[in-house]
Amino acid sequence: MTTACETLRWDAVRLSAWSEPLLARVESALSEWVGVDAPVLLGDAMRYAVLDGGKRLRPLLVLAASEAVGGHAEAALRAACAVELIHAYSLVHDDLPCMDNDVLRRGKPTVHVKFGEADALLAGDALQALAFELLTPDGTSISPAVQAMLCRLLARAAGSQGMAGGQAIDLASVGVALTEAELRNMHRLKTGALLQGSVEMGAACGNALSPQTLVALRDYGAAIGLAFQVVDDILDVIADSETLGKTAGKDAASDKPTYVSLLGLDGARAEARQLLAQALEALDRSALADTGALRALAHMVVDRDR
Amino acid sequence: MTTACETLRWDAVRLSAWSEPLLARVESALSEWVGVDAPVLLGDAMRYAVLDGGKRLRPLLVLAASEAVGGHAEAALRAACAVELIHAYSLVHDDLPCMDNDVLRRGKPTVHVKFGEADALLAGDALQALAFELLTPDGTSISPAVQAMLCRLLARAAGSQGMAGGQAIDLASVGVALTEAELRNMHRLKTGALLQGSVEMGAACGNALSPQTLVALRDYGAAIGLAFQVVDDILDVIADSETLGKTAGKDAASDKPTYVSLLGLDGARAEARQLLAQALEALDRSALADTGALRALAHMVVDRDR
Repeated sequence: MTTACETLRWDAVRLSAWSEPLLARVESALSEWVGVDAPVLLGDAMRYAVLDGGKRLRPLLVLAASEAVGGHAEAALRAACAVELIHAYSLVHDDLPCMDNDVLRRGKPTVHVKFGEADALLAGDALQALAFELLTPDGTSISPAVQAMLCRLLARAAGSQGMAGGQAIDLASVGVALTEAELRNMHRLKTGALLQGSVEMGAACGNALSPQTLVALRDYGAAIGLAFQVVDDILDVIADSETLGKTAGKDAASDKPTYVSLLGLDGARAEARQLLAQALEALDRSALADTGALRALAHMVVDRDR
Repeated sequence: MTTACETLRWDAVRLSAWSEPLLARVESALSEWVGVDAPVLLGDAMRYAVLDGGKRLRPLLVLAASEAVGGHAEAALRAACAVELIHAYSLVHDDLPCMDNDVLRRGKPTVHVKFGEADALLAGDALQALAFELLTPDGTSISPAVQAMLCRLLARAAGSQGMAGGQAIDLASVGVALTEAELRNMHRLKTGALLQGSVEMGAACGNALSPQTLVALRDYGAAIGLAFQVVDDILDVIADSETLGKTAGKDAASDKPTYVSLLGLDGARAEARQLLAQALEALDRSALADTGALRALAHMVVDRDR
């Protein structure tokens, strides 16, 4: 079990040292796998949507979870990339005029601004398919059971009872007064499902985990999934567009319910600390020897607003 | 090996008798699996896009191929539904204003006309995820190897080197003079990949097929995949909107290259007969005992224009 002391040793420097080589591997794999043999414009749009951008939080969660359970390295790398492709496709579609109509993402023109709406739509569709293709390679030492499990977890996290479902609830909630439970349910699906899925996919790269460990990792994923959105809502209020890399203050402007509008800024911050505590407590009961990276990532998620 | 005589016995009546119970099973499974636990509007849009519509050619191809190889029945039913979900999502996205801007599909308002563009976009996205979820059930007698193989085949057929890639080429080809080889490549991806994938997925439900059989079934799928599009182009010219259930004459109106514009009506018909012959020849060398349903489906694809 990781102690409080050990957590302290995972400061920002150590997290960087741990994550840098992993991020380099993810970037290199994405660059090798995304849009390479696709028809020209489509391939360009897919690569533009995926490469050179984002903090890669989801891939890091996959890799940290896999590392904690001694998972299969190639399976974890593929799962890390697959999750990132689902995240990237959701951003491309979310930015379209019929959704959020955003023109700026990570400080660059959004995919449809650069490539047109039709190619942006298709690039998103193709990225989703590619995610499942990456999880099911031919001629590999990744067992079919792990491949099938990774597809199952990703499909559930991305679909109508996961991310897409949460986006649909979000759409229907503009201008609607949500209770805290309804807001939490929306975000549990919209943002939380894929973050939790990342942790579960990392765990699925390991072998014969105890139910206790699986449940603990799932709970960890659920807590940081929700914490991520709470912090996002806080950032939307306090950060300017430059820091955020996207248009700030959009949620309030579009009359969307947020944790800040519901709980106030201090209440939202308290909620984020509470979720962080839940995540760390889940790791305590995971019975895993080394959860340092997972702990550090949980802190990173919550401390983004500093 | 199926003889010419045996093929003759598979007339329209026998094809109906074979397909009717299978179609009923597919409809019932789709109704049970699609959009049921999704947030209300999203679930409604998913079901509207999938249920009560279409000839279900792709599911029939999956089931016929699986039957020919003695495949796992539940795997085949799931694969049949998964392929239809990919087809359905592609129609929903294809009909959007930024793509074909179609308002009529199978004689009904298109999904975005009925539910709005945002929910149509999300419904398509969620249908794609659901396809992979259906292929990877928990607690089933479908082996993980078959589950993983089905995901692999479907992802490739749907993605940037399959259907989505073909659509991107199609987008880029409006008003462009294509050669016959370029047109064929576009359709091999846009329509052919998923039809061929249907046959391959059906075959993947079987066990330990010989390379000879696999190659023959793949060739069969490729031939009818292309034949389908040739006939589609013919129908677009000769049928009226009522028969077609969608807006007729659109391709010519939008200045898209077609087999008819390239080969003329008679040339296109000759091409379709030629592809039918190729499909039947492939079945002859498949070494499978009973290919009657696959033969009848090939005839059905090509004889749609009568």
